[in-house]
Amino acid sequence: MAGGSGTRFWPRSTQANPKQFHSFFFNHSLIEMTSRRLGSLIPIESQWVVTTAALEPKVRAQLPGVRVLAEPMGRNTAPCVFWAALEASKMDPEAVMVVIPSDQTIRDEPAFERTLARAMDWARTHDDLVVLGIQPTRPETGFGYVEAGAGDPAPLVKFREKPDLETAQKFLASGNMLWNAGMFVWRASVILKAFDQVFPEMRRAWNQHGGNAVDAYAHVPAISIDYAVMEKTKNAVVFRLDCGWDDLGSWRALEEMARDRASTSGAEVFLYESSGCFVDAGKPVALLGVDDLLIVETKDILLVARKDQAEDLKKLVEAVRARRPDLV
Amino acid sequence: MAGGSGTRFWPRSTQANPKQFHSFFFNHSLIEMTSRRLGSLIPIESQWVVTTAALEPKVRAQLPGVRVLAEPMGRNTAPCVFWAALEASKMDPEAVMVVIPSDQTIRDEPAFERTLARAMDWARTHDDLVVLGIQPTRPETGFGYVEAGAGDPAPLVKFREKPDLETAQKFLASGNMLWNAGMFVWRASVILKAFDQVFPEMRRAWNQHGGNAVDAYAHVPAISIDYAVMEKTKNAVVFRLDCGWDDLGSWRALEEMARDRASTSGAEVFLYESSGCFVDAGKPVALLGVDDLLIVETKDILLVARKDQAEDLKKLVEAVRARRPDLV
Repeated sequence: MAGGSGTRFWPRSTQANPKQFHSFFFNHSLIEMTSRRLGSLIPIESQWVVTTAALEPKVRAQLPGVRVLAEPMGRNTAPCVFWAALEASKMDPEAVMVVIPSDQTIRDEPAFERTLARAMDWARTHDDLVVLGIQPTRPETGFGYVEAGAGDPAPLVKFREKPDLETAQKFLASGNMLWNAGMFVWRASVILKAFDQVFPEMRRAWNQHGGNAVDAYAHVPAISIDYAVMEKTKNAVVFRLDCGWDDLGSWRALEEMARDRASTSGAEVFLYESSGCFVDAGKPVALLGVDDLLIVETKDILLVARKDQAEDLKKLVEAVRARRPDLV
Repeated sequence: MAGGSGTRFWPRSTQANPKQFHSFFFNHSLIEMTSRRLGSLIPIESQWVVTTAALEPKVRAQLPGVRVLAEPMGRNTAPCVFWAALEASKMDPEAVMVVIPSDQTIRDEPAFERTLARAMDWARTHDDLVVLGIQPTRPETGFGYVEAGAGDPAPLVKFREKPDLETAQKFLASGNMLWNAGMFVWRASVILKAFDQVFPEMRRAWNQHGGNAVDAYAHVPAISIDYAVMEKTKNAVVFRLDCGWDDLGSWRALEEMARDRASTSGAEVFLYESSGCFVDAGKPVALLGVDDLLIVETKDILLVARKDQAEDLKKLVEAVRARRPDLV
């Protein structure tokens, strides 16, 4: 899934060039790393990227050899999964599908690979919808959770909305609440059957409007796979995944990953009585008497933000969009 | 005089492209404005620009029609004045010379023109060295002062070094202490005679080393005209000049002149919970939760500075010069 056009890394990330195509200080872009990480289990010719038509050229440039399903427009994750499952079932109704976002980071790749292999084996032989649940490492309020029963795989007890801090702390202590990272494994036939059982609106809208993505997309419900199917299905199981996963959801998350780098980009940084700044710029940056700033320079715009106000980035982005949509 | 390569407007101003060639938010560069301001009294073909050889092409590009005296190297103002006087006296020993920096701003141009015309008339008919002394408007500690006697023109009593604040406040109250803005008027013969009387080292070194600028410049004393001649001469007079003069000596001075502009360059500025920032950038700038910053972006480097620490800009510039002299 590579349709995201979030602006949490604005202005480095924009609608036309979102986060998944950026390498930041890594050697490869996030989508390239996702593709490589899957490579030993899923050969490149079996990797499908669902993205918007506007982003298709970027996907093809970074991942030659994958199949691209180009959505006429973004409609959240349920139509994306439904379409991919329809296409997969044309080739093999019992094909095992791994659904995975393209813009995450994983530190322990062998651990990821081991768990994914087990989950794929399970899905091949069980009529279950498999959720990969991330072992939490902090009381995170920015993610949804899945409550797992006993065992591994465990029965999925319940999906939980993003909690407040107190609840998140209880979740962390409980040991059976896992982060929902949007990673799923199932056979095409199993997810299509689940759609028909708990969210029949999807196939109905699809078939009413031509039975193909180009015609149907504008008419199918824009809804997440979690809401449409996962929260209602009875046959979900959870595999615990402990692999140094991060959704890289903000500049702060990127900075933590950068550790002692002052700059994401290799740009030279000159400091005088300045500290705690994080820089992503295409040219040298000189800082005089300033602390704890986020400084991002692209060819189109320069952002200077107080780091501890980064959660208001969205509001600034909306203010920019109102006057200069081309900059967002 | 256009040899300055100060870095008080770094990084907009650099050694290779110093302040006098910049227009900031004016319609013309500072040197162009200086030339135009003199135009009614001194036709373009009588305007001579003394600059370094490296800056000569910039002068010729901005001021076609002037005569350029290209110094082999910067040697402060005394050699510059001496050379120009020698050249002028070849054409007419009694030519009236106006010596004026190229990088100042003047708000009341008619007042400037009236006083300059009077000073030129005076110099034409008196064997005096005329200083244009600026009527101070604040207790400025960054300038030297000239103490004027009674009358206008007044006898020049004494040059004064940059004062401390208490002294500057007394100077302002006294009414007879004027800013030394480096503006002088005299006949070529008069200044050359003054050099010979109070600073004979200049002609001696000049003549010993070939008698021309190219050969002599490396050997003449690098000293200001104030120290070399003006502080020692007996025949100086002062004309009071009250014309909204500013030497535009810092980003803060420029910002004050900018009044309610947030940006010197017309670059769009997007603000969210930010105030008091001053921006000079080649692209739009978005500010989030930051106050009282100076932000300067050039094609080569980005500066983010706390405005009230701008006096440390020199230290930062030296730190940059040590690693990347090409950026200064």
